[in-house]
Amino acid sequence: MNRPTGMPAPALHIAGTAAALPGPAVSNASLGKVFGISEEWIDLFVGTRTRHFGWDLATGEVLHSLTDLCAEAAGRALDASGFTASELDFLVLTTTTPDALLPTTATQVADRLGLNYLPVYQIQAGCAGAVQALDLGRALIASGHRAGLVVGGDVTDRFLDPARGAATLPTQELVNYVLFGDGAGAAVVSADPEGEAIGVRALLNCFTGQGRAPGQTIDWEGPARRDPDRRMLHEDYKAIEEGVPLMAGEILWQLLETTGWSPDEIDFLLPPQLSGRMTRRIVEDLELPGPREISCVADTGNTGNALPFVQLDRLVPELRPGDRALALVVESSKWIKAGLALEKEDTR
Amino acid sequence: MNRPTGMPAPALHIAGTAAALPGPAVSNASLGKVFGISEEWIDLFVGTRTRHFGWDLATGEVLHSLTDLCAEAAGRALDASGFTASELDFLVLTTTTPDALLPTTATQVADRLGLNYLPVYQIQAGCAGAVQALDLGRALIASGHRAGLVVGGDVTDRFLDPARGAATLPTQELVNYVLFGDGAGAAVVSADPEGEAIGVRALLNCFTGQGRAPGQTIDWEGPARRDPDRRMLHEDYKAIEEGVPLMAGEILWQLLETTGWSPDEIDFLLPPQLSGRMTRRIVEDLELPGPREISCVADTGNTGNALPFVQLDRLVPELRPGDRALALVVESSKWIKAGLALEKEDTR
Repeated sequence: MNRPTGMPAPALHIAGTAAALPGPAVSNASLGKVFGISEEWIDLFVGTRTRHFGWDLATGEVLHSLTDLCAEAAGRALDASGFTASELDFLVLTTTTPDALLPTTATQVADRLGLNYLPVYQIQAGCAGAVQALDLGRALIASGHRAGLVVGGDVTDRFLDPARGAATLPTQELVNYVLFGDGAGAAVVSADPEGEAIGVRALLNCFTGQGRAPGQTIDWEGPARRDPDRRMLHEDYKAIEEGVPLMAGEILWQLLETTGWSPDEIDFLLPPQLSGRMTRRIVEDLELPGPREISCVADTGNTGNALPFVQLDRLVPELRPGDRALALVVESSKWIKAGLALEKEDTR
Repeated sequence: MNRPTGMPAPALHIAGTAAALPGPAVSNASLGKVFGISEEWIDLFVGTRTRHFGWDLATGEVLHSLTDLCAEAAGRALDASGFTASELDFLVLTTTTPDALLPTTATQVADRLGLNYLPVYQIQAGCAGAVQALDLGRALIASGHRAGLVVGGDVTDRFLDPARGAATLPTQELVNYVLFGDGAGAAVVSADPEGEAIGVRALLNCFTGQGRAPGQTIDWEGPARRDPDRRMLHEDYKAIEEGVPLMAGEILWQLLETTGWSPDEIDFLLPPQLSGRMTRRIVEDLELPGPREISCVADTGNTGNALPFVQLDRLVPELRPGDRALALVVESSKWIKAGLALEKEDTR
């Protein structure tokens, strides 16, 4: 048997959060016009109203790199936390879509923030990346560090091409244009309750993909032996629609069991954010009457590694001392169950 | 001031190691013949005699993926350690060149090994990746885990194209064909001395790249807006030749300071492994008369994230109780100083 992965976390606190979304929100009407997609089809299929892109929808020009977005979010999370850059002991950045394989985006963000002489890690991850990065933050704090920066983000410019209209795109590829968005988010974590003083009471980060086919595949190319027919982005929507709601329920109960909280003690629910439509279905299936839902995907699109940070950033101003929140996160590329149980400290 | 990063590590031990190098060694003569490169030029410029490729030198066909190599190394490290797969609490995999962006190679390796219900992390890193992954292993052990698997590897098939002969390649690109090789390595780490029982007495993992231009850049492409003129792989050899020997010396003295060991107490030296020629120069510059050098780059080529694991695997059978070894690792893409101070436990 493997060790329990839903064990109570050693002391970890969130001191400050921030989100960075590039440029103006892009409506379904604007998107539909560029790609010749029906606005009604987007509403129905995805249930997402707007998203942000770091590239120009007309020309494809990249205006905001992942480094830009992550540095912006990280800098603002630092300001919100009350910590200064020189007080940080580490930086962990998580993404699916780094600006380059080397140097890592994590080191570029460290450079932008003026950080030096500290460990800097970059995690390659899917939708559970934010929780995986917070989990490593927890371990680094447990090993003796006092505070660190955890950052996540994703960008779409290498997968979405504004020059390709709907006429040339099969539906399975078209959906990528309406499902995803660009963005970054960040949190300063600390050993003691400081700044916003949100305690992480449980953290779940559990690979459950042994023997299961991937629900999502995202490939990359180097300059050698390019194959234009290779399918670079693939989702198994049937597996995702079946698997994710089920896993969300299991994560919920695992977090409740670890914390000893009952369902009616939860004030806020941060559900998985695949799309507006999927999120609605998952929340309905969970049948929790009490908690207020904190979702952002209908406004931001699926921003991958940024998304749980964006939810956290929307949760923070709502929390009163003693309030409890659960975040449920599912990674469908290889089926990782992830989640957070949070409680606002009473520091009065 | 940032926290000291050369602090004595909490208890971490290496219980078993392994390396996996694909297919037969490829000589300079064979390589020279395929690419029309002079064998003498390779000897002189790189000082590397052989390397291994996971792809067929004649056809370019990929025979061994990164997942294949990492799973092989990980499985054998597990056997060497005396641990069983079910006793592992986590898996950390580090690479520059994952098989896909998603699912991560780390989750694919976990699947191959039959691991489930445990945290699985993938680090995106350059040459210091092995030490960064061991550093996270150290933090995960400090946070309460008992044992885990740390794996590193890299493959070249998306950057090297056997169909392109020397006639079409500028020297700066040709050097990539003779400098790099494919491979993977792994170590089982544990909280207590078990298996090979090598104690990690100090671990240095320090980003020092603030304000410094990258010494190496490795880019990737998605399917949108491909630019065939984009330079995907770039090394600043002048910066590397100047920076790395200097940093190697600083790492050496920082590890000695942290451990309190004197230079004549070091039995083995694992120097940075950029190329056969650079390694020779670095070792000469360090002017350490005592320790035996454990190098592999002249036989394996630069295998990136695999390389320090391959050195470790060659060190293990040489160690007697009480023996001390220092590993010096430099990441030149954004200038990370990394290193290990190791001591064989006396478990008789």
